[in-house]
Amino acid sequence: MSKFSLLCIALLLFFSCGKTQTPNTNFEPKPEFSIVIHGGAGPIKKGNIPPEIEAKIEAKLEEAIKKGYDILKNGGTSLDAVQQTIMVLEDSPLFNAGKGAVFTNEETNEHDTSIMDGKTLNAGASSGTTIVKNPINLARAVMDNSPHVMLSGKGAETFAKEQGLQIVEPSYFYTERNFKELIWVKENENKNASKKTAYHNEKLKGSKFGTVGCVALDKDGNLAAGTSTGGMTNKRWGRIGDSPIIGSGTYANNNTCAISSTGWGEYFIRAQVAHDISALMDYKGLSLKQASKEVLAKVKTLGGDGGVIAIDKNGNMVFEFNTEGMFRASMNDKGKLIIGMYKE
Amino acid sequence: MSKFSLLCIALLLFFSCGKTQTPNTNFEPKPEFSIVIHGGAGPIKKGNIPPEIEAKIEAKLEEAIKKGYDILKNGGTSLDAVQQTIMVLEDSPLFNAGKGAVFTNEETNEHDTSIMDGKTLNAGASSGTTIVKNPINLARAVMDNSPHVMLSGKGAETFAKEQGLQIVEPSYFYTERNFKELIWVKENENKNASKKTAYHNEKLKGSKFGTVGCVALDKDGNLAAGTSTGGMTNKRWGRIGDSPIIGSGTYANNNTCAISSTGWGEYFIRAQVAHDISALMDYKGLSLKQASKEVLAKVKTLGGDGGVIAIDKNGNMVFEFNTEGMFRASMNDKGKLIIGMYKE
Repeated sequence: MSKFSLLCIALLLFFSCGKTQTPNTNFEPKPEFSIVIHGGAGPIKKGNIPPEIEAKIEAKLEEAIKKGYDILKNGGTSLDAVQQTIMVLEDSPLFNAGKGAVFTNEETNEHDTSIMDGKTLNAGASSGTTIVKNPINLARAVMDNSPHVMLSGKGAETFAKEQGLQIVEPSYFYTERNFKELIWVKENENKNASKKTAYHNEKLKGSKFGTVGCVALDKDGNLAAGTSTGGMTNKRWGRIGDSPIIGSGTYANNNTCAISSTGWGEYFIRAQVAHDISALMDYKGLSLKQASKEVLAKVKTLGGDGGVIAIDKNGNMVFEFNTEGMFRASMNDKGKLIIGMYKE
Repeated sequence: MSKFSLLCIALLLFFSCGKTQTPNTNFEPKPEFSIVIHGGAGPIKKGNIPPEIEAKIEAKLEEAIKKGYDILKNGGTSLDAVQQTIMVLEDSPLFNAGKGAVFTNEETNEHDTSIMDGKTLNAGASSGTTIVKNPINLARAVMDNSPHVMLSGKGAETFAKEQGLQIVEPSYFYTERNFKELIWVKENENKNASKKTAYHNEKLKGSKFGTVGCVALDKDGNLAAGTSTGGMTNKRWGRIGDSPIIGSGTYANNNTCAISSTGWGEYFIRAQVAHDISALMDYKGLSLKQASKEVLAKVKTLGGDGGVIAIDKNGNMVFEFNTEGMFRASMNDKGKLIIGMYKE
């Protein structure tokens, strides 16, 4: 065999294996840590949101992400950063989670949440709680202090009490804005289709979105992801969306990435959004950006929409959404803060 | 470039792409249809089960799979075959699903279930119902007749009533065997560890298993999967296992395969068992058998055990488990029936 042929073989072997070794075209050094958050995706268009609300949302996103950033900067774990960042968002009435959860058809507020540890693949989740002030703390407690991954309803509330988590009256979750939205959705969902305007349809569609989430990489190289939501306005029959479903709303694996989803939950479950992004990186060698785009394209094909935030094991951060907008923010280890709402 | 070099390039391109084109070493023609069922995996060892129970289980597995086989043979859909096969298993007190569901810590029977259509990626699931005679029918109704994928608790029961599904008194699900097991588990779970015998530990472990499931390929090439369970004996806090979780307990995709899991649910959620098998086939070109083995090995590494049944789009059928045994049966389009319980 000629030297040339051997060279051919060597070159071809090199390139044929390239699929699983996507070259790093990002020559920035790997960040020591990084963090990304979202406050929901949906029909978020410039002009739809009054400037004073826009400013409040921006300020709260900044407050939340800085909470997690400080934890990571001080050598804290990605799990703690995710949990405490989400707590800030849950305590605000601005987002569809915790205090700001939307109303169900029965005029209650039911919370779904999950958290996952990329190091151990341990996870915790709960669905349908109505009195736990910070559902993300319940997800963490399920992961850390129970033999289970997912608890639900009254049973999950009993566990929350046993764990000493902060319990509130259901009325704590009342917000006038969300209650009015429920009334509007109930009145309008079944109106004659021909009478529906584009605005009407958009508003109805908006009632499906919300949710907050956070993903983080800590100084030890551990990834974590968490998600918390009140679900969709007017949800009924104990509906569970993607947010408390490991692999759909939340997934973290130190070998690949950490993901939190937000969008039309049913489609995110059917498309297995969070785990599919990880699998495309793991088995097909896609970058985090490529994998996120590909999976959201699948969601679109099925008929759904929404977005994801993600961090890979090298600290690369991704916002990706196929809605009009997504409330979002990121910070790297240099403290560089990016906040966004609309399409760029 | 010499002809030899070109040949080298051609050969190398061929072999370097081989990963995603696993050669078909099975020269049997693709079956027109096929079906596989399980009735739970766990510490099922020869000698543990009295011969008369063994005979009853075998007979019920045969009755159930023949129900689905006849549907498929007559040109019915894989979804109908899966649903009606699971109904037979749910109506029997022999398996941990429907009638035979184990007891929760609160001495109730709470059912979890899911179904998925590989053609449309549509799915339905419910968790924590206590009065729906055949939970798999509820999963199917959620998929077909609601805008949701997953319902839970009292809300899911309201939906079941609205759909006209058969409702029973909770006492319908009482079985003496399961109630005695609950009492035994409660009495023994916290006994001094040093007093525990191997038998004791095995029996406690056994209380985590059960579940029934079915996967099928129909004459139109459509795959479907379904799973139904009573969860684990002495479960508390509204615990949800992998059975109603799309991607963990159940997954179907016409591009790859249909899977139903049974085992220690928490580990099956963390390992994303059902979707991961599909992803390994789709993105890494593994065979169904290879993918199932690889994913169950991951479950083992995490500390869990259990099994899966699966059919790929070519009608290849797989039983795979890392427990002592798994109640199982398969039939191909020639009517060849295989029934098994223990390791081969």
